[in-house]
Amino acid sequence: MSQDQTRNNVLGVDIGGTKVAVGLVDREGKILQQVRKPMQAKGSPEAGLQAVFEAIDSLYSGGVQGIGVCAPGPLDPHSGVVLNPPNLPCWRDFPLAERIRSKYSVPVKVDNDANAAALAETRWGAARGYRYVFYATVGTGIGTGIVFDGRIYHGKTGSAGEGGHVSIDYHGPVCGCGKFGCIEILAAGPAIGARARAKFADPFRKSAILDLANGEVSAVTSERVGQAYASGDALAREILQETAELLTIWLGNIVDILDPDVIVMGGGVAAMLSPFFDSIKTGLPAWCVNPRASEIPLVMAHYGPDAGIAGGAALCAE
Amino acid sequence: MSQDQTRNNVLGVDIGGTKVAVGLVDREGKILQQVRKPMQAKGSPEAGLQAVFEAIDSLYSGGVQGIGVCAPGPLDPHSGVVLNPPNLPCWRDFPLAERIRSKYSVPVKVDNDANAAALAETRWGAARGYRYVFYATVGTGIGTGIVFDGRIYHGKTGSAGEGGHVSIDYHGPVCGCGKFGCIEILAAGPAIGARARAKFADPFRKSAILDLANGEVSAVTSERVGQAYASGDALAREILQETAELLTIWLGNIVDILDPDVIVMGGGVAAMLSPFFDSIKTGLPAWCVNPRASEIPLVMAHYGPDAGIAGGAALCAE
Repeated sequence: MSQDQTRNNVLGVDIGGTKVAVGLVDREGKILQQVRKPMQAKGSPEAGLQAVFEAIDSLYSGGVQGIGVCAPGPLDPHSGVVLNPPNLPCWRDFPLAERIRSKYSVPVKVDNDANAAALAETRWGAARGYRYVFYATVGTGIGTGIVFDGRIYHGKTGSAGEGGHVSIDYHGPVCGCGKFGCIEILAAGPAIGARARAKFADPFRKSAILDLANGEVSAVTSERVGQAYASGDALAREILQETAELLTIWLGNIVDILDPDVIVMGGGVAAMLSPFFDSIKTGLPAWCVNPRASEIPLVMAHYGPDAGIAGGAALCAE
Repeated sequence: MSQDQTRNNVLGVDIGGTKVAVGLVDREGKILQQVRKPMQAKGSPEAGLQAVFEAIDSLYSGGVQGIGVCAPGPLDPHSGVVLNPPNLPCWRDFPLAERIRSKYSVPVKVDNDANAAALAETRWGAARGYRYVFYATVGTGIGTGIVFDGRIYHGKTGSAGEGGHVSIDYHGPVCGCGKFGCIEILAAGPAIGARARAKFADPFRKSAILDLANGEVSAVTSERVGQAYASGDALAREILQETAELLTIWLGNIVDILDPDVIVMGGGVAAMLSPFFDSIKTGLPAWCVNPRASEIPLVMAHYGPDAGIAGGAALCAE
């Protein structure tokens, strides 16, 4: 692609624990091209950076307006310094934005994936035209982002919008973060798998979930639950309905604090739960004092697996 | 007071279920004069309004820059319409701001008490100089307000900042709002009284709390707990410590969403709990993922019983 074609575009970079995805994104949020390269998460800081450079170079031909990077947190979005991400042990207090900027000489922004995806949805996706956006990505974990008036809400230190670790049950199970009863430990993918496996403590329990796992309870995962639900399995429906109820309670808390004008859900588990969005909306008024809770749109994200690329690109377009 | 003296001042009006307090407040948030008159909460809409006018008239001599009113919610802060407040049955969809404005011909603002008090603390009190303020008033209930960059955060419909109804225990006791396990039902004054009374299910339990209630368990209230704590009672300490732990869990949720740069607590129960603020701060990191949680100042409000007058005045100075 020539420099001329890329002049109005930006690069969105999505750094994960195992891969780096890079996309060329136009001003309307359309992903024109993308590549995916391995990440070096466990080596030296420079080896990690080199992996990112290689991924960028495979698409970059100069002329882009900026480079926006989704990276695992914790990080400082103001300085672009990556602090000590558990799944990127190569970096500790690493000045990622500065290093990328000095190589490519374009503006560089760094933020966490949920914040960036929230911004992409606001700018180009399901939250376009809304002022008070709450975005949640539900997958292996639950990440959230808040966008007010078209800008990510970062709070004082850049750690705002960690809604996945809002506890709704302080007597509940311990989360990976150390808190008890966070919505992430109650309703993300692993929780759905665990809830399903617990149902099979009753050895006479029959369900397509178990058939899909070849009869092995230990092989039951949230994916199997989703597949079983799609085939009409009653137990799978029960499990997903219970999960939707927990998300309703949690969203009630969010609504009572933020009073958003839209709630956007992304991620694989959210897609699996989308048939239950109506029941979440119907249940919401019982779990918040906001008198207009039932009027808040609850919608699936526009971007699916490319949310990280779109999110990175949105950071640059801010 | 002559017109000349009041020219740069505003009136703060605090409407409650039984009284109307009005104060003349200067540009530095100092309350120069105040009166307190009975409210007519149960009569006609006009009788209620007349009670407010009488209270204002007893201080008003023209020349003020504006009138700011704290009123019980729910209300619409944008239009100044009071919707259907449970403790002001006289008004339903009542255009309070418009009616006051048309009588006095000055700018009039209306908001709920916690939002207004949060603004007064930001402008003139304990949160002066902070950008991301979370304010909570803990008394018979728990009300909260959020101020970003010197302005009340209202959300889409004006119902943001209802932090008192964030649930931390969805299996917990039912709150007056209908939700389960709201911090208000767990940690406000009535909860402290109930927790104390429950301790006396053991008839051999001795405590200054019970002595202060003349030995009658049914007469035990949060005030008695506070008095007993002040006299060094161990059970009172235990009860207040338990309450502080619940507030810690709740503030962990708030911090993970908002990442504030200050937390201000007002109200009588907060004052009673202030000896436990250090333990709340120490406990906070265990209940939020924010890596800088322990650095967030947690301070008592500057305004005590006059928070409503100051809050009303702050609305005008916005």
